[in-house]
Amino acid sequence: MHIDLFKNTDSVETFPAGTAIFSEGEDSDGLMYVLLEGEVEVFVGGKPVNLIGPGEFLGEIGLIDRGPRSATAIATMDSKLAPINEKRFQFLVRQTPNFALAVMRSMAERLRLPRD
Amino acid sequence: MHIDLFKNTDSVETFPAGTAIFSEGEDSDGLMYVLLEGEVEVFVGGKPVNLIGPGEFLGEIGLIDRGPRSATAIATMDSKLAPINEKRFQFLVRQTPNFALAVMRSMAERLRLPRD
Repeated sequence: MHIDLFKNTDSVETFPAGTAIFSEGEDSDGLMYVLLEGEVEVFVGGKPVNLIGPGEFLGEIGLIDRGPRSATAIATMDSKLAPINEKRFQFLVRQTPNFALAVMRSMAERLRLPRD
Repeated sequence: MHIDLFKNTDSVETFPAGTAIFSEGEDSDGLMYVLLEGEVEVFVGGKPVNLIGPGEFLGEIGLIDRGPRSATAIATMDSKLAPINEKRFQFLVRQTPNFALAVMRSMAERLRLPRD
């Protein structure tokens, strides 16, 4: 996904290396994130399952189904993330079909991750 | 998803109970399916992971990332499915944002399935 689409947002959040963006089981607060800078590692049941780089999404499952976070996300470097709330998500899906396609590709990639 | 959106298609395929719609590892042929009637069971590595009912999707991962089938799908009842090829998928995502949202909800549900 082109990061530029999200760089103008005035609500970019900074997470220092080692801090959690969200934790498995907690309320999703209707938010997903686009990673603008840095790196984030994703853990399920304490096991590392994925490494997220700039331009990739985080937390879309919780936004889409409003369930609790399915994973824990921890910044492994100082990282900047643009939060996307439900209203903006709906707007992006309706106005920017490439955003919807990028979210679907991201989810397909996660569905392909090896199950242990 | 409202099945009516797919019922008019002139390419509905019928699968008798016990037949495979697709098999894990085979080429996805750029096709996903909407189940119109019947029931389909999904297996990964020979283990049952999901049961699909009318209005639900099948095979979207292979269409989205063009990789091989990530699962085997077998009709457990005589079933009717509407295939959706890449061209129609792109059209639906662009013209019917609710279709994109329904596919994302379906993928989120699958990402929530227990990993054994």
